Amino acid sequence: MNSFGTKLRLTTFGESHGSGVGCVLDGVPSGLTIDGKFIQSELDRRKPGDTVSGTKRKEADRAEILSGVFEGVSTGAPIAVFIANIGARSQDYDELREIFRPAHADYSWFMKYGVRDHRGGGRSSARESAARVAAGAIAKLMLKEIGVTVKSGVALMGGTGSEACDFEYAKNSPIFSLDPNVEAEQIAVIKAARRDHDSIGAIVKIRAEGVPPGLGEPLYGRLDAKLAEAMMGINAVKAVEIGAGVRASFMRGSENNDQMSADGFLSANAGGILGGVSSGEPIDLTVYFKPTPSIGRVQRTIDIRGNERVIEIKGRHDVCVGVRGAVVCEAMTALVIADMLLLNLSSRLECVIAAYTCRKPL
Amino acid sequence: MNSFGTKLRLTTFGESHGSGVGCVLDGVPSGLTIDGKFIQSELDRRKPGDTVSGTKRKEADRAEILSGVFEGVSTGAPIAVFIANIGARSQDYDELREIFRPAHADYSWFMKYGVRDHRGGGRSSARESAARVAAGAIAKLMLKEIGVTVKSGVALMGGTGSEACDFEYAKNSPIFSLDPNVEAEQIAVIKAARRDHDSIGAIVKIRAEGVPPGLGEPLYGRLDAKLAEAMMGINAVKAVEIGAGVRASFMRGSENNDQMSADGFLSANAGGILGGVSSGEPIDLTVYFKPTPSIGRVQRTIDIRGNERVIEIKGRHDVCVGVRGAVVCEAMTALVIADMLLLNLSSRLECVIAAYTCRKPL
Amino acid sequence: MNSFGTKLRLTTFGESHGSGVGCVLDGVPSGLTIDGKFIQSELDRRKPGDTVSGTKRKEADRAEILSGVFEGVSTGAPIAVFIANIGARSQDYDELREIFRPAHADYSWFMKYGVRDHRGGGRSSARESAARVAAGAIAKLMLKEIGVTVKSGVALMGGTGSEACDFEYAKNSPIFSLDPNVEAEQIAVIKAARRDHDSIGAIVKIRAEGVPPGLGEPLYGRLDAKLAEAMMGINAVKAVEIGAGVRASFMRGSENNDQMSADGFLSANAGGILGGVSSGEPIDLTVYFKPTPSIGRVQRTIDIRGNERVIEIKGRHDVCVGVRGAVVCEAMTALVIADMLLLNLSSRLECVIAAYTCRKPL
Amino acid sequence: MNSFGTKLRLTTFGESHGSGVGCVLDGVPSGLTIDGKFIQSELDRRKPGDTVSGTKRKEADRAEILSGVFEGVSTGAPIAVFIANIGARSQDYDELREIFRPAHADYSWFMKYGVRDHRGGGRSSARESAARVAAGAIAKLMLKEIGVTVKSGVALMGGTGSEACDFEYAKNSPIFSLDPNVEAEQIAVIKAARRDHDSIGAIVKIRAEGVPPGLGEPLYGRLDAKLAEAMMGINAVKAVEIGAGVRASFMRGSENNDQMSADGFLSANAGGILGGVSSGEPIDLTVYFKPTPSIGRVQRTIDIRGNERVIEIKGRHDVCVGVRGAVVCEAMTALVIADMLLLNLSSRLECVIAAYTCRKPL
Repeated sequence: MNSFGTKLRLTTFGESHGSGVGCVLDGVPSGLTIDGKFIQSELDRRKPGDTVSGTKRKEADRAEILSGVFEGVSTGAPIAVFIANIGARSQDYDELREIFRPAHADYSWFMKYGVRDHRGGGRSSARESAARVAAGAIAKLMLKEIGVTVKSGVALMGGTGSEACDFEYAKNSPIFSLDPNVEAEQIAVIKAARRDHDSIGAIVKIRAEGVPPGLGEPLYGRLDAKLAEAMMGINAVKAVEIGAGVRASFMRGSENNDQMSADGFLSANAGGILGGVSSGEPIDLTVYFKPTPSIGRVQRTIDIRGNERVIEIKGRHDVCVGVRGAVVCEAMTALVIADMLLLNLSSRLECVIAAYTCRKPL
Repeated sequence: MNSFGTKLRLTTFGESHGSGVGCVLDGVPSGLTIDGKFIQSELDRRKPGDTVSGTKRKEADRAEILSGVFEGVSTGAPIAVFIANIGARSQDYDELREIFRPAHADYSWFMKYGVRDHRGGGRSSARESAARVAAGAIAKLMLKEIGVTVKSGVALMGGTGSEACDFEYAKNSPIFSLDPNVEAEQIAVIKAARRDHDSIGAIVKIRAEGVPPGLGEPLYGRLDAKLAEAMMGINAVKAVEIGAGVRASFMRGSENNDQMSADGFLSANAGGILGGVSSGEPIDLTVYFKPTPSIGRVQRTIDIRGNERVIEIKGRHDVCVGVRGAVVCEAMTALVIADMLLLNLSSRLECVIAAYTCRKPL
Repeated sequence: MNSFGTKLRLTTFGESHGSGVGCVLDGVPSGLTIDGKFIQSELDRRKPGDTVSGTKRKEADRAEILSGVFEGVSTGAPIAVFIANIGARSQDYDELREIFRPAHADYSWFMKYGVRDHRGGGRSSARESAARVAAGAIAKLMLKEIGVTVKSGVALMGGTGSEACDFEYAKNSPIFSLDPNVEAEQIAVIKAARRDHDSIGAIVKIRAEGVPPGLGEPLYGRLDAKLAEAMMGINAVKAVEIGAGVRASFMRGSENNDQMSADGFLSANAGGILGGVSSGEPIDLTVYFKPTPSIGRVQRTIDIRGNERVIEIKGRHDVCVGVRGAVVCEAMTALVIADMLLLNLSSRLECVIAAYTCRKPL
Repeated sequence: MNSFGTKLRLTTFGESHGSGVGCVLDGVPSGLTIDGKFIQSELDRRKPGDTVSGTKRKEADRAEILSGVFEGVSTGAPIAVFIANIGARSQDYDELREIFRPAHADYSWFMKYGVRDHRGGGRSSARESAARVAAGAIAKLMLKEIGVTVKSGVALMGGTGSEACDFEYAKNSPIFSLDPNVEAEQIAVIKAARRDHDSIGAIVKIRAEGVPPGLGEPLYGRLDAKLAEAMMGINAVKAVEIGAGVRASFMRGSENNDQMSADGFLSANAGGILGGVSSGEPIDLTVYFKPTPSIGRVQRTIDIRGNERVIEIKGRHDVCVGVRGAVVCEAMTALVIADMLLLNLSSRLECVIAAYTCRKPL
């Protein structure tokens, strides 16, 4: 179960403090130019180290393509990317060998597996998301060929923010803020939490534009369901909305229904998805991140023998995982949409026939 | 993509106004007593007709078990259940043959498939959820053997409700209300909307108790991700939360983290899932339903040729789909947890060895 | 695990002496005319009763389409087909309730499940293949639109036969014989075995023509591997060959290699598949059926408590399962090729782009 | 489609002349001691270079474990293994850039993908099987804990051999010969073919012992079907038999049926599998390899523009791929059986209940 997707299928491997993390992206059509610089730039967006919100761990995060690309172009073979772990300081975790960190995966995973790689959470670490971002970058390259773009930004941090959705601004904001007017305040909130050895939650917005109508595979490969799965599967995410989301449940049908004219939809509550299938309108997601569980404050917990302990996490940690999380949300959204694009190719018989009747011999 | 689950795998078929809807539930272990009355009682809970919130269509919904059960006990073969469509009035839909109903799947599905069964939405109809409920009932029978229960209720309807979570009360409430103190007010809200030929949204709570720790398959079969997928894949659902959900993104880590003592967790913000794996605590989901898209008011729309039209939906429709939706949420939650129970059997080598060394010949 | 295929996905259910057998075929593109008469005619080819080789059980085998078809055309929704069991005489099996029939699934399935539907083998019965044939018929309808045909016939029965491959003749032969010159002798072999209360094996040939080059999904969805899986998964099959098959292992490379000219391949040892992908040449399979395990002779066996017993199977059974098995081989071959056709749609980026750039709004 | 297996899932990546080949093995239970030396020894068995049958290419084949193992023990996380390509001489292939080698994947894959990594066949090369052998070694380590062993050997080479099945002898034979009495003759056959710049086919036997009864997932995850898929998916395999295989189709039921006594089966025609499920008897497979397609003789072919060409393959190639192929067959057999062991854990309700009721808190 370390794979995601159906026709475009991501498999990841690796741990926080092992030799590295990697992905195998299977199902990329042949003929796609694989722009290594773009993959690297996506990893750099996720990279912590110099942002106000991130951990101080320096992750070099160089993406090494191991397979599937020949002379710069995808061959149809699986594309493996490896990102070596550099700068991991395992000794930071020595005293955690037998202790469960609150709000982390430590306790539940130990109950499942009975053994643990305690160093930085091992496989449960957010470090694995580097592999998702690398794969998402390849998905984005493919989507670009169809005219689909995926953007993200942070709307609220620790409750501070606004309704504004300036995705262009967010791209260059150090905290991916969607609103230039509240950015400074949000940075102040982050700094205050860091000073308190505490952490804060965040609300992330994702928008996909140019998505053709018809994507999503009823009834159990619905686009909304797969996006919800993808978002909720990201570390620290506790809620997912599509379109009006929570607000829709407070509306009447006459308010919430997006009526149509010859020029298109007259409102956008659906978030671009109707009956689990894309409508051609922009797809809007809202993703809620809990505060980073690692905090430098004294917390009560237990160890692997059930004894009570107190813990004060040192290490180097993001104050607000939602910031880098936005990049991961983008990557997963791109992977889902690209998968749906490929799956949808067989929706109509006429398209299947056309695909084969135009083919000619050498 | 009409299948859901991995080891316990649901496949459904059927349309709103065809011969019926059905499911094939694959992966049920042999030896489970299949209580047909219980399956029927679950279908009856979902059945509309005499509730204040529901449609007036009388759905008899008799579950007929076609396979997989011999002398009352599961054999390990796939269990097929068929529910014939009775009382479907297709002529109600004649005038909708070429028109897209706002906020329904009509437009996006037509863009996907190019053909449509316009009668009641065809395959996209909420009628399919009867098949889910039948399968969910079987999952519940299996879960019961392990001590797991799944409950549900409606917290808010059209914005009216409370924080109360009286699941026992909800079971017998005609609108599955979680709070006896607001039930009357909620019924009034429903009646008001019906009088206005309008509809309302709802917020549904789901709780699973007795779930053993260790369920969920990292990293892409996480329990939270699969639950989110399952919930968002239900018609009319637009948002899903786990535990503190949206609220967690407004908290600091020191507030949100569930610390532990020798007696267990000291708070319950995680909603029973840590790192995508169950912790042994109750699992709490909140599911947000939009208002029923079918309303009896004049709406603007287009037809399959792109011409502008107005529509005034007659038919018989729920005022608040979230009420019956709660039963579907329960069923899908049961299916996810049961699947995870079976998948988790191989998590540890010692368990695998134990399973085989105890086996003996005839 | 009662499903087969990836993008075109067959799920079957039902037992020999339950209410019936059925299939859900998922992934059929919308817009395919579903010719119910053709589906019935395929079931009739599989039907026993009046052939020299078959059982005397009369199976009416009426295919009832339950879903996925609207006004005669596929909608993209899953197509469910049900075939009621008529004329099942369960009492024939009463004395087998606790005895394992040699060479049947009885013993191994009982070891697996611990319970059994002893009537006619329950789920393990060849009766389930009716569902495969119904689904295969739909796959054939789809393949016909691309120009692909699948044929079959019986080469040897009980060792009697020839190298001839007259698929047109086989179609109308009561025993699907591939050689008019040996047909009479083969019928005599069948009659002799029946007289001896014994059974015989058979060798079946399958040929698929018109298969476009490029089908098969390296490396673990290879066309040859999927065909081998499909054939070996049919009851009573014990060996599968592709092209020269066994003979290839006795050749030198200079003999076996199919060299090429501008006019195509100069020989046909590969059987139409190179590196797991179709070459555009006819695909040739040879499938080896063991003799029907049910024979009317005294055999030694044990019962579910491990006690020694003797058994003399009454019931009504095929003398040579390979005859009707040929129709099942055809169906499964059609399903595999149709699945591969759909999967292959995304092999090249240029095809993916073409599929989306040509799409236009209403 | 570069993944194989369900609960134990292999994903491979890499090409013949890229940076290396690798695998991700997902689903290994936690707590398995991962013996790196054993994995290396399995790779060494597959390694060519100094055997009479192999190519002269020196493949160092060092297995590097990238993830999933902590302090020598599996953690439940996916185990990635990478094998760097060393000693690849891509220039050997320069003149093949535009030519299709007869009996290779070159033509059919080019028709599929439209681009090619011509160097040594790229992804279609048998080099990928190193990744299978590494994964198979881990499967064997797991099987060993249950008492299952998998053995192999070569029965015939170029038609020379015997019925003998001395698996212990084969283990140490340079050509994995199953019969000490014919080994010298077989070596002579290989040398003669090499002298003639030709190649020969081979027949390989596989035996799995200690397999518990009950493995295999009816009806589309049958053990025989999955083994057939696994074997036919190995490069150069053209036929697969189980038990009596081809011979069974020449027998009568009274000969072929394995009758039973209180002491077990009285014959072994079934090859250890009944109704697709293991019976507890040894599992016997026979796998037929075609001769190596790469031969140093002049052959007619075409290039990517359809022009006629002649080709004389230089490079370094096995005379008989079946020899190293035996090791790959073993690996794939081990992977299939291990997968089935894990899948079978949920076959009976009583086992599921037992697995959960015995679990206790910390």
